[in-house]
Order: sequence, then C-alpha cells, then structure tokens
Amino acid sequence: MKPARTPQPPYYAVIFTSTRTEIDEGYGATADRMVELAAKQPGFLGVESVRGDDGLGITVSYWESEEAIAKWKREAEHTIARNRGREKWYDEFFTRVAKVERAYSFDRRT
Amino acid sequence: MKPARTPQPPYYAVIFTSTRTEIDEGYGATADRMVELAAKQPGFLGVESVRGDDGLGITVSYWESEEAIAKWKREAEHTIARNRGREKWYDEFFTRVAKVERAYSFDRRT
Repeated sequence: MKPARTPQPPYYAVIFTSTRTEIDEGYGATADRMVELAAKQPGFLGVESVRGDDGLGITVSYWESEEAIAKWKREAEHTIARNRGREKWYDEFFTRVAKVERAYSFDRRT
Repeated sequence: MKPARTPQPPYYAVIFTSTRTEIDEGYGATADRMVELAAKQPGFLGVESVRGDDGLGITVSYWESEEAIAKWKREAEHTIARNRGREKWYDEFFTRVAKVERAYSFDRRT
C-alpha cells in the first residue's frame, strides 16, 4: 500500500487505531471488504492501513466532508462489521475524526 | 505500542505516512529518538506508530495546539532528522496536519 493521493485540503480524516484480540473468525476478509466498500462510497478520497508486528493497527481514511463520513458510518455492511469488531475482533480502539487543514508531500522520483 | 490516551477533543493530529528507501544508515535509532524527543515537547499528547510488512508506515502524533506543532517542527534535532529523511530514508511521504474534532474509544476490559 502507498500513501493516499489526496487533493488539496481541507478534507477530513478518520483515524482508527486498534489492538486485536486473538479471535480471527473472518477478520481479514472483513477488513479487506471494508476497504473495498469504503472506496465505493461518495466522498471517499483514499485510505492508508497498516498493522504492525506488535499488534497495533492504524487505518486512516480520507473523506470530502463530514456528511460523507456520516453516510459511511450508516452503511449497512459497515455497521454489521463494526458491531462484530466490538463483539470479537478488537481488544481496544480509538476512532478520531479530524479536519485536515494542511498537507505536505515528498516524492523522490519527482 | 498501544493506542494513545488522548484527552477530550479538540486537539491536533500530525499524520505522517511514508514509504522507505532501502537505505538504513541509522534510520531505526533516529526514529526511536524522535519519539523519545517528541514526548518531551510542551503540548505533546501522544504518538502511535506502525510500519507494515509491505513497507507503508503511519505515525500519528497528537498535540495540544498548532503552536506546539510549530515548535516541534523547529526543534533542532528534529530538523536535522527531517532533512536526512528527505536525503536518504524516505521514498515518499505525506504529512497532514488535522484538527481532531471528536473521538470515540472502546476498551474490552472496561
């Protein structure tokens, strides 16, 4: 995965930081499906997701507006997946909604 | 590493997403040192950092104010490290400064 190619700010970021339980039960397939589904939502700008060897995961998704985030939160499959997350998959998580005010990028090839 | 224990919003997040070159030359020690040094800065609230097997790294640091971020950006060792990053260590990166407007957390043990 590469850094997301987002447009000029302002836009919104949802920073989801988590640690997992030891329960698998479809976690990987659901996580992949959520990325696929998010990418089809109106107002989606990109996503970056990593889970480290020590168990900490960070997923940042980028959105055009607060309204786009609210719609994605209400999406049916996503709602089911979030409930499973609380029931089984996550030991702990933080979801932070933030307004990106400025951004800088660097690309060695340009 | 665990999700950062941040206070109630509003506060600021610096989302740093990167891919690395193959050049090591002190990268790991400098990355550790920057986390240690950031934690000593006024207005620092926490940090979460992960690099995945596919090479994508996400580090999110949290700050009380824009002023705290600006001071950290000017810190001398950090400035040297950032320059090395552009010279050697990073293939590509995005730095996004965002204002966290709301946050939700979940902890299985509580």
